[in-house]
Amino acid sequence: MIGIVGCGLIGSSWAAAFLRGGHDVVVFDPAVDGQTLRERTVHRLSVDASGGAPPSAPGRLTVADAFDALSGCAYVQESIAEDASAKRALFSQLDRALATETIVASSTSALCMSDLAADLPGRARFVVAHPATPPHALPCVEIVPAPFTAEEIVMRTEALLSGIGQTPVRLAHEMPGFAMNRLQGALLLEMIDLVREGVVTPGGADALIRDGFGMRWALLGPLEAVHLNAPGGINDYFTRYRAMFDGFCPDGTRLDDLLTPQTRAALQEYCLAETPLSQAQARRDRRDDALAALRAWRAERAV
Amino acid sequence: MIGIVGCGLIGSSWAAAFLRGGHDVVVFDPAVDGQTLRERTVHRLSVDASGGAPPSAPGRLTVADAFDALSGCAYVQESIAEDASAKRALFSQLDRALATETIVASSTSALCMSDLAADLPGRARFVVAHPATPPHALPCVEIVPAPFTAEEIVMRTEALLSGIGQTPVRLAHEMPGFAMNRLQGALLLEMIDLVREGVVTPGGADALIRDGFGMRWALLGPLEAVHLNAPGGINDYFTRYRAMFDGFCPDGTRLDDLLTPQTRAALQEYCLAETPLSQAQARRDRRDDALAALRAWRAERAV
Repeated sequence: MIGIVGCGLIGSSWAAAFLRGGHDVVVFDPAVDGQTLRERTVHRLSVDASGGAPPSAPGRLTVADAFDALSGCAYVQESIAEDASAKRALFSQLDRALATETIVASSTSALCMSDLAADLPGRARFVVAHPATPPHALPCVEIVPAPFTAEEIVMRTEALLSGIGQTPVRLAHEMPGFAMNRLQGALLLEMIDLVREGVVTPGGADALIRDGFGMRWALLGPLEAVHLNAPGGINDYFTRYRAMFDGFCPDGTRLDDLLTPQTRAALQEYCLAETPLSQAQARRDRRDDALAALRAWRAERAV
Repeated sequence: MIGIVGCGLIGSSWAAAFLRGGHDVVVFDPAVDGQTLRERTVHRLSVDASGGAPPSAPGRLTVADAFDALSGCAYVQESIAEDASAKRALFSQLDRALATETIVASSTSALCMSDLAADLPGRARFVVAHPATPPHALPCVEIVPAPFTAEEIVMRTEALLSGIGQTPVRLAHEMPGFAMNRLQGALLLEMIDLVREGVVTPGGADALIRDGFGMRWALLGPLEAVHLNAPGGINDYFTRYRAMFDGFCPDGTRLDDLLTPQTRAALQEYCLAETPLSQAQARRDRRDDALAALRAWRAERAV
């Protein structure tokens, strides 16, 4: 049994994701009436199922009217408002109410667990599982352990999420804004620069991504993508375009300061495992066909 | 008649994009035999048409075996290898051979036209039209005029590209790496940082985008997207998350140094015109349904 506490846009989406994955789910949100909770969740399930492969038998949804209903859960996903005090109070309550082996994961996008659960007896079971929003539609979930989070809790969280088709991405440690928003932040700040400098309009800046790289990154990670854009793979890419990247680096730094030999080797190893150079052209052809199909799909569908 | 000079991966993709848009196209590449040129282009047309709405009647494809065949073109898209000397020589030849009103656009991803055509009598007709690759699948094209490019040439280029369903995005002026690669560069450098710091593996960094924001950005520009992520729109977003963005800024700067009041106002004006706050919830619902359908589409299709 999976518990969802806080059932707004994110909580109801989590509920749909776990139900689709075959888990029974109990949702609890004292601020929302049961009928609304059920409708939100069921809508999300129906939309997802309509577009793709039929889901395996979905689990059973229970709308709880009392906190006690969570006591039988193996995993609780907290998705209440982004308020540190409210989360601290809730975690204290959950730590007392839940069986010791129950995992408590938070959907927080920016608060560190070491600031929310450090004083609790059961703090080792608390972890951040911050989803791309909404999680029933976007697979990525960044897993951010506090220094006190047990390794076993992280591994069980990853296994649970992988099991329902999500993509857990574990960070080595807490950091402000975690990694997902830090990546988005880098792109947004660069867009803001371009607009402030008068190089493009805001609409132009959006189009540069939405009608270009955004479509590519919906199919391939940015590293995998540049690996395909040079004959010798990602290492060759960053060698060919070194001068351009030097120009993008913060003042006083150059690409080679950031892309150390060790980092280069790690990127190369990963990319070659994904796509050996002997398969790169076939992968490019598949990419291009998929992108053309994505363009056609998008044109048919109003967003 | 549209001319394509250089018919590798990008030239053949351009040919398909123009043919689909109803233009007759003549392709010229002395390094590739005619049969191969034709097959490359026709394949790209067939894939695109298969996935979506039937194209309007495509134009006629001619494979030229001599440079003269370009003389009747209203627009020539140069897509030869990224070699400044070779492009300079070709532009000189084109400037002599083409009617004075013919536009010459370059697919270069990083060379500035002011470095390639400054000495030519007809330099005012030369402009960069750098596509997201491949252009038959990705609509975005950044238009980068040199200081000597005629305004009328830029406007006709934009109109032509819009007419075949591409998204031309005009930059105010030349800059190293233009804008599209500068945006990609910001994201890649941040990913490199995360890997170097040991926060995530390269595969984790890719997944953070491909299974999260990348899917969103295939449907919505990053600015439109954050506009939907705060009750008061984009201005509210950057106010709520100011502290987080301060942490993402280069040393010694804060969000408000980059996001000046004038820039804020420009972003807000654009986003509210796209989605007034009264329609934000409906837009969020459409976004979520589209993302769920995109996830299902992607799961069905091997990429």
